[in-house]
Amino acid sequence: MSDQNPIFIPGPTNIPDRLRFAMNVQSSDHRSPGFVETLSPLLQDCKKVFNTQSGEVILFPASGTGGWEAAICNTLSPGDKVLIARYGMFSRRWIDMCQRHGLDVQIIECPWGSGAPANEFKRALSADTQHKIKAVLVVHNETATGVKSDIDAVRQAMDSCSHPALLLVDCVSSLASMPFEMDNWGVDIAVSGSQKGFMLITGMAILAVSQKALAEMETAKLSCAFFDFRAMMTANAQGGFPYTPPLQLICGLKESLKMLFEEGLDNVYARHFRLAEGVRQATHAWGMALCAQSPDLYSNTVTAIYVPEGFDSNELTDHTLAKYGVSFGIGLGEMHGKAFRIGHLGSLTDSMVLSGLATIEMAMADLDYPIELGSGVRAAQNHFRATTA
Amino acid sequence: MSDQNPIFIPGPTNIPDRLRFAMNVQSSDHRSPGFVETLSPLLQDCKKVFNTQSGEVILFPASGTGGWEAAICNTLSPGDKVLIARYGMFSRRWIDMCQRHGLDVQIIECPWGSGAPANEFKRALSADTQHKIKAVLVVHNETATGVKSDIDAVRQAMDSCSHPALLLVDCVSSLASMPFEMDNWGVDIAVSGSQKGFMLITGMAILAVSQKALAEMETAKLSCAFFDFRAMMTANAQGGFPYTPPLQLICGLKESLKMLFEEGLDNVYARHFRLAEGVRQATHAWGMALCAQSPDLYSNTVTAIYVPEGFDSNELTDHTLAKYGVSFGIGLGEMHGKAFRIGHLGSLTDSMVLSGLATIEMAMADLDYPIELGSGVRAAQNHFRATTA
Amino acid sequence: MSDQNPIFIPGPTNIPDRLRFAMNVQSSDHRSPGFVETLSPLLQDCKKVFNTQSGEVILFPASGTGGWEAAICNTLSPGDKVLIARYGMFSRRWIDMCQRHGLDVQIIECPWGSGAPANEFKRALSADTQHKIKAVLVVHNETATGVKSDIDAVRQAMDSCSHPALLLVDCVSSLASMPFEMDNWGVDIAVSGSQKGFMLITGMAILAVSQKALAEMETAKLSCAFFDFRAMMTANAQGGFPYTPPLQLICGLKESLKMLFEEGLDNVYARHFRLAEGVRQATHAWGMALCAQSPDLYSNTVTAIYVPEGFDSNELTDHTLAKYGVSFGIGLGEMHGKAFRIGHLGSLTDSMVLSGLATIEMAMADLDYPIELGSGVRAAQNHFRATTA
Amino acid sequence: MSDQNPIFIPGPTNIPDRLRFAMNVQSSDHRSPGFVETLSPLLQDCKKVFNTQSGEVILFPASGTGGWEAAICNTLSPGDKVLIARYGMFSRRWIDMCQRHGLDVQIIECPWGSGAPANEFKRALSADTQHKIKAVLVVHNETATGVKSDIDAVRQAMDSCSHPALLLVDCVSSLASMPFEMDNWGVDIAVSGSQKGFMLITGMAILAVSQKALAEMETAKLSCAFFDFRAMMTANAQGGFPYTPPLQLICGLKESLKMLFEEGLDNVYARHFRLAEGVRQATHAWGMALCAQSPDLYSNTVTAIYVPEGFDSNELTDHTLAKYGVSFGIGLGEMHGKAFRIGHLGSLTDSMVLSGLATIEMAMADLDYPIELGSGVRAAQNHFRATTA
Repeated sequence: MSDQNPIFIPGPTNIPDRLRFAMNVQSSDHRSPGFVETLSPLLQDCKKVFNTQSGEVILFPASGTGGWEAAICNTLSPGDKVLIARYGMFSRRWIDMCQRHGLDVQIIECPWGSGAPANEFKRALSADTQHKIKAVLVVHNETATGVKSDIDAVRQAMDSCSHPALLLVDCVSSLASMPFEMDNWGVDIAVSGSQKGFMLITGMAILAVSQKALAEMETAKLSCAFFDFRAMMTANAQGGFPYTPPLQLICGLKESLKMLFEEGLDNVYARHFRLAEGVRQATHAWGMALCAQSPDLYSNTVTAIYVPEGFDSNELTDHTLAKYGVSFGIGLGEMHGKAFRIGHLGSLTDSMVLSGLATIEMAMADLDYPIELGSGVRAAQNHFRATTA
Repeated sequence: MSDQNPIFIPGPTNIPDRLRFAMNVQSSDHRSPGFVETLSPLLQDCKKVFNTQSGEVILFPASGTGGWEAAICNTLSPGDKVLIARYGMFSRRWIDMCQRHGLDVQIIECPWGSGAPANEFKRALSADTQHKIKAVLVVHNETATGVKSDIDAVRQAMDSCSHPALLLVDCVSSLASMPFEMDNWGVDIAVSGSQKGFMLITGMAILAVSQKALAEMETAKLSCAFFDFRAMMTANAQGGFPYTPPLQLICGLKESLKMLFEEGLDNVYARHFRLAEGVRQATHAWGMALCAQSPDLYSNTVTAIYVPEGFDSNELTDHTLAKYGVSFGIGLGEMHGKAFRIGHLGSLTDSMVLSGLATIEMAMADLDYPIELGSGVRAAQNHFRATTA
Repeated sequence: MSDQNPIFIPGPTNIPDRLRFAMNVQSSDHRSPGFVETLSPLLQDCKKVFNTQSGEVILFPASGTGGWEAAICNTLSPGDKVLIARYGMFSRRWIDMCQRHGLDVQIIECPWGSGAPANEFKRALSADTQHKIKAVLVVHNETATGVKSDIDAVRQAMDSCSHPALLLVDCVSSLASMPFEMDNWGVDIAVSGSQKGFMLITGMAILAVSQKALAEMETAKLSCAFFDFRAMMTANAQGGFPYTPPLQLICGLKESLKMLFEEGLDNVYARHFRLAEGVRQATHAWGMALCAQSPDLYSNTVTAIYVPEGFDSNELTDHTLAKYGVSFGIGLGEMHGKAFRIGHLGSLTDSMVLSGLATIEMAMADLDYPIELGSGVRAAQNHFRATTA
Repeated sequence: MSDQNPIFIPGPTNIPDRLRFAMNVQSSDHRSPGFVETLSPLLQDCKKVFNTQSGEVILFPASGTGGWEAAICNTLSPGDKVLIARYGMFSRRWIDMCQRHGLDVQIIECPWGSGAPANEFKRALSADTQHKIKAVLVVHNETATGVKSDIDAVRQAMDSCSHPALLLVDCVSSLASMPFEMDNWGVDIAVSGSQKGFMLITGMAILAVSQKALAEMETAKLSCAFFDFRAMMTANAQGGFPYTPPLQLICGLKESLKMLFEEGLDNVYARHFRLAEGVRQATHAWGMALCAQSPDLYSNTVTAIYVPEGFDSNELTDHTLAKYGVSFGIGLGEMHGKAFRIGHLGSLTDSMVLSGLATIEMAMADLDYPIELGSGVRAAQNHFRATTA
């Protein structure tokens, strides 16, 4: 019966019925006028979530990882230098992908729990007087550590030394949940996916691409076909896809945007902050530490929490699932065994969050964690009571 | 977004996906062999839930109230005397229905919060030496007060004076959630519905009828057509219904029985006890009183709880819904304004119950109830931790 | 795989996805403001389909048969005389129900295939100078014979002799598919159901009741409880039901009305006429006869067709289902073995109708019917081509 | 209302309810034991459809085009020579992709409507004494022309000159609908997708890879990340995916396989042949020509049909959709304007096929095609009558 319990992984999210129905459409002809009429406004509406006027939105039937690949393969050539900081699982994986594609990756090592180091970016970019660095890659929201980075600061670091590199940003687990300002931050490619803030099933990479990035396609030598921007944009302009489109996800995305706009993006962001803050209050009440090093880095979509010394976070998440049927995020990479994660993004309510906190408290108590049962719940209750709209 | 929050009314219940899908079948021909092959084993399987070998199961496309009417109209005649105790909203309504149909209703008044008074039944039946009383009516689980009555004790009271009256039992909110022993308890008609322990949508009255009750149809003079047992049984025997059958509910009931049997009825009952006990522990921690007067009367499907003197339970349930989007049962009848109810029947988990407790605690605190925030949650957590299978 | 084939029974109908989703809502509290806000406008909107300003709409969680019982039990007393013509299965059943309730039923026997005989009604009513006849009962659309009667003519017959009887009309298989003019025709109670023109699952009787009929409740002595108008109206006025309401059907009805109004009721009627006419053209091409005796009686929701002398219509429908997986209506009552029925109501397209015609043609050919294969399809094709909007 | 009409495009297919429900699961944790228990047997079961014992099955959240890219990028290096015949839209596109990735593509030009030319393959391979050709690429079923090629003959051509090239086969629109013998035919990589014979939504590339092809990964220099076999197989071996898996499609695939095995793959193939033959009989009755040049090339999943000289196939498909709400496949590439296509794959019945034939006949008649209305339907009816199981 556990499919009735909310999940607390940082995406895919708990899908509301409205979107489950929206995605559950019967097959129809993707070459029909109906499809054309759906796709074009959809791409326009997506821009509002990225906050871009001049960028183009591109959808691929893939996961966010495919979006990463699209971002680099459409704009870079083998041997190109890219700059990126490694401070979590997803920055690490993006680095691996770059190396796999023969890029020259300049890595700034940062402790997990920190965010994108604008100062170090500035230093590296300033030193790169010959502009060998073709792109700066940043993970906006590190899902492994619950850290949200300051993209605007990275942009300022780039601008301060007038560096012409592209700014490529992974916003898979932040978009549609936390503010994202593509144009204001000068982001060249923003990579997101369907299964996080959009509350849909996994299966669609959602990108926004600046005109500057599009221009790089002329010279980029990394080959791609499935993820080719040009082929997709050409087909989109004619109302179609270069291959069979993911109709159900497209219908779902249309309804998702409708939901987001009905609530109002600012309200969506405020709700995510509010629920995240409840989780952080609970964490504090338990006497545990967040992986995120400082409040300015706190993510509103996922909270990574260190278990006390001597405890194994995997045992905690396994036990919670096995005994109580509720899923939490495990500790990834360096956090393996040391931290667990509470996903709190998408369509979520106070009650759902409280059920998660109450449940993992039981598991902690079962495993003799030094916590007071009910303390986290109470802290969140107080926060929710005080802040409900 | 509140359709993601569980509801805590005492039925209809939170419907698991499996049953939502099972009920979501396309129309098909109810005169086809497929329907016939579904209906007949379904009626047999229902008997296992009623615990009857000799009784017949009859389904009407109606609510449980329709089942009440079927029970009396098929077996009684205008002016017939029936004996019933009034100790809650549903016994009160059944009495009203009997009076409306011109039955002579002998009422034993009992305080709300008490159950079926076997001793008083015995006294009344013993006094009825001429056997004017044609039927004893009992509500097994009084949804308004959270009281489960002892049907076996009523049967013993009847047997002790060898009274031949029929025993008609409303088990709408108990069947498939708490043990029910139709044959052992000598129940003549048991009336239930689809939207409680069977976890389906509202729309089907589910009855089991003893051979003794069926024999009464010969002489019963209360007229009925839609609810006529004979027409239904005749049609059922040929694989059909006397009118258009509720196909989707029939498919749902088939799957519901499958779920119940897969879990095992004893496990289903144990789970209901366990979750109910968690709610009762929470109530105790809040320092509040149950409507049910003693532990032997505690219902495992719904708990009715008195709010403290000076508080209005309606304000509590209204506030909880308005501010937190979670529904609880209001106080009905005599309990109006004095008590609220927590429904905990059907497909439910520890986490779901905890979310309900945490939410109503917030509402209580908002309204300055003298409770410690988190205390009820903690009490339930402790109970759940200790008793999880 | 046959659940992908349309069904051609005269209700329940092929349910479009939009309504399947609309009915597939999770349980919610029927005592919440949300329910109140849904129910009240819904009852108003239903009036548009009945074409009544002054009448009240009442919904029961039951089938249309329950609606019949509600109509008579709320307005009549045992021994009351009612006038009705018997010309099909459903008029026959309504007669049976009246007799069962102790009414004095004056029956005008008519051949199956004919409709309500206004002249004979006039004769009977004129002869009833003492106004013993309390109600005239008419089945608007005889589903067994595919005959639509002229209700306005019955009303004129009543008015011509200034007879004060109530006019009770079964419009189960006509409402929302063919024009219905409650106020203009002076109908006192119109009885319909969810599973026909409303394209929903079975489970809701939908009635409209005139003020004159409501006034009869004061003196009516037939007892009813579940089907009591007064209890329902009183509860409705407060936004609720006297018992658990069929939430999913109510949500479905809301969406169904939206669909009907979006298409426009006149367009809905025109579409039903058009599709029905295609079926009739096919029948003509097959050289077969309709049960309906004359064009003015042709129903636009169901066509009953005599099989040629020497053939068994049951064999035809059984064979069609067994070999090709498509359901057609069997011959009911007098038509048993002599006629089969093609239901063509609800959400239906040219293509769906053609698939049915092509399929039953195959079955006819298999059974050596004297038809030209493809001839019925061609006739319908020609009609559809010429008349598509 | 047109979502009730079947579609007749060659995929995505009409999805049966059973699979729509199977894919409509709520999000759950893809790192939980439940996922692991689902994935592993699923990969095994897929092998039965590919008919491989020694191959590995790999799933990517992408379309079939992504599968093509995976096939070449994991096994080949820039500059590698590949041999392929161009006889339709999909072979053409695969060629384009190869060229885009810097492969040296040796193309055998063939008329559209022909299939893979085993003799010409043999000539080319025999001439390649230095074994420069690293892979032979073949589209098993050319969706644009309705041509099924003989893969076994290609294998024999390769074997006859002991050529060691890999044999890569696109079976997107044939697998699970027509026999496929991976091991017997010596196929090294077979590329399919979810939205054809598996009857699911678009979004999953389904590949089977031989041990020989896997060994090529050691030396292949085309870079890939999202589509990397090794990363996927490593993750799969641990029960997971290297990125977020498409849970809903995985659940759908599980149920799809169950359906296919319940019917029996041989029965599935026979049904596709039977329905396809009905369409071909209809085409013959219309006096039209198939694109496929000879019976041995006839596809059982899609039929491409030349419209008569002087007619525009696009006008036909546009008109059919606009007036009758039914989608057929347009003519692609060289067939643009000259041919239309009838998709008849996946879960389909006689009645559904007949509805499509009857509908497009109407459109043909509207546009003054020289056909006899009903003639195609009749031809198919006769075929279906004679061959129904």
